[in-house]
Amino acid sequence: MPYPFVSLCGSLLILFSFCCFSATPVEFAKQYTYPSKIMAEEREYSVYLPPSYTQHSTQSYPVIYVLDGDQSKLLSISGVVQALSTEELENQIPQFIIVAIPNTNRSRDLTPTQTDLIYKGKELAKIPGSGGADKFLNFIQNELMPQIEKSYRTNQTKVLVGMSFGGLFTGHALLTRPEMFSHYLIADATYVWDDNYLNRIALGQIERLKQKRLSVYLALANNDHIGEHGVANRAWGNGFIARLNAIRSDNFHVYSDYFPKQRHGTVQMLAWYHGLVALFSAPSATASMKNDR
Amino acid sequence: MPYPFVSLCGSLLILFSFCCFSATPVEFAKQYTYPSKIMAEEREYSVYLPPSYTQHSTQSYPVIYVLDGDQSKLLSISGVVQALSTEELENQIPQFIIVAIPNTNRSRDLTPTQTDLIYKGKELAKIPGSGGADKFLNFIQNELMPQIEKSYRTNQTKVLVGMSFGGLFTGHALLTRPEMFSHYLIADATYVWDDNYLNRIALGQIERLKQKRLSVYLALANNDHIGEHGVANRAWGNGFIARLNAIRSDNFHVYSDYFPKQRHGTVQMLAWYHGLVALFSAPSATASMKNDR
Repeated sequence: MPYPFVSLCGSLLILFSFCCFSATPVEFAKQYTYPSKIMAEEREYSVYLPPSYTQHSTQSYPVIYVLDGDQSKLLSISGVVQALSTEELENQIPQFIIVAIPNTNRSRDLTPTQTDLIYKGKELAKIPGSGGADKFLNFIQNELMPQIEKSYRTNQTKVLVGMSFGGLFTGHALLTRPEMFSHYLIADATYVWDDNYLNRIALGQIERLKQKRLSVYLALANNDHIGEHGVANRAWGNGFIARLNAIRSDNFHVYSDYFPKQRHGTVQMLAWYHGLVALFSAPSATASMKNDR
Repeated sequence: MPYPFVSLCGSLLILFSFCCFSATPVEFAKQYTYPSKIMAEEREYSVYLPPSYTQHSTQSYPVIYVLDGDQSKLLSISGVVQALSTEELENQIPQFIIVAIPNTNRSRDLTPTQTDLIYKGKELAKIPGSGGADKFLNFIQNELMPQIEKSYRTNQTKVLVGMSFGGLFTGHALLTRPEMFSHYLIADATYVWDDNYLNRIALGQIERLKQKRLSVYLALANNDHIGEHGVANRAWGNGFIARLNAIRSDNFHVYSDYFPKQRHGTVQMLAWYHGLVALFSAPSATASMKNDR
């Protein structure tokens, strides 16, 4: 064997041993790129696998899909999920696979209709290119989800988690594709979108939900400090919750929390925490989980 | 250049490119081993650095030291800290370095006195080898903390976080070494330890705390369901909180929460969340943080 080869291997080994003795990287997820035909762009996503997910196991896992899913958000929700699913915290929820989907164009992908953010005729914000939610749902349903289900041992429990515009998107998905996820976690959605959009389309869609076996959790924050549209957002959110509660059944579960001390900008992690506990540790949810696991 | 060398490099490059295109590991911490003379054993610890911590910056950071700090706990508390310190969650707390210290012998290292877990003469649990808290504090103070401060850009804000026996340990550290940390986060401590240990030693130590500039957060859970010693644990916890509140001042800050819907086994992450917000987003804490950052 030529001398330089031996020397290189030797050096690499020494370097490797040294590096791993002094600092071993601790990994919590993997990041992937998907060449999406539907979106006509490369889409990244990151996947967290639970501690018990090993090559040697045959267990299947429920999956959480997180919108606005940059790696910082994936770390945060993985922290919540991992804590709640450990024995130390009484296994309040099952272990999950988590798929985080970061944005390339948030305004485009998370909004269901083409409009700016307008309340009572007053423009609150320009939302350029809005109205792409259905296309983004197509991407998740027809490209990302099959990719995940092909790559990992998943079961039938699929959770969509969204906040603000992501909550609007999650509510839109609930109303228009109730078969796509088994659980929808909607954190302080933008109810003021497009003149009360979620309640408006609920009128035509809500009867379909009655037939479905699914669970919804909705969190509302106190946005009174931002004025009239903050008050309206909660009022319309409460209207949406009331509509869903009106069709509750043994199959269709609705949970909700109002966080009077939290604002739109502070409610997110508490919504995840209490929402996941409500969805997955309530007796009815536990019963249905048992069938899925 | 010899052919095999080129070939090896080529293969490594191809392998590397392929692996990193299809799945890029996402790291959140690094794990280290420290050969402790004080503990006469190798001790592991893991370090999470905040997103803005880069080689090119000169900013210094506060440090959280987490007891019972296995990598699962580090992921969970890092998730809470990272969420609360992002702009998206309104930068409610500053960014932190987090150091997690896993156990080698929990019963030995986290308990301040040599006894079993006894309540009113009844043995609740054998605690073999108990009573090593002072030695473990010596390790943290004289070996681990200097190592962290040598390796990272740290500031004067140092937080000790402990739950259950870890809360007992944190309370013991507060009373006996109030100069060691600037903030003490005590989650549902084992107040029933050694016949009301924390309140008993507080009698002799509490006057010293008056002089100190520090902050304490204490969380209590509802453990009524486990019976008389669960009720006593909360009563003695409330006694300890009252003692600390009695010496509150502009320098000595005390925050506490009682979580009536949480048990000992479920309170931990909520204690971190609300505790860090109480300690680091309250006006007085913010004021002192400004001096430290």
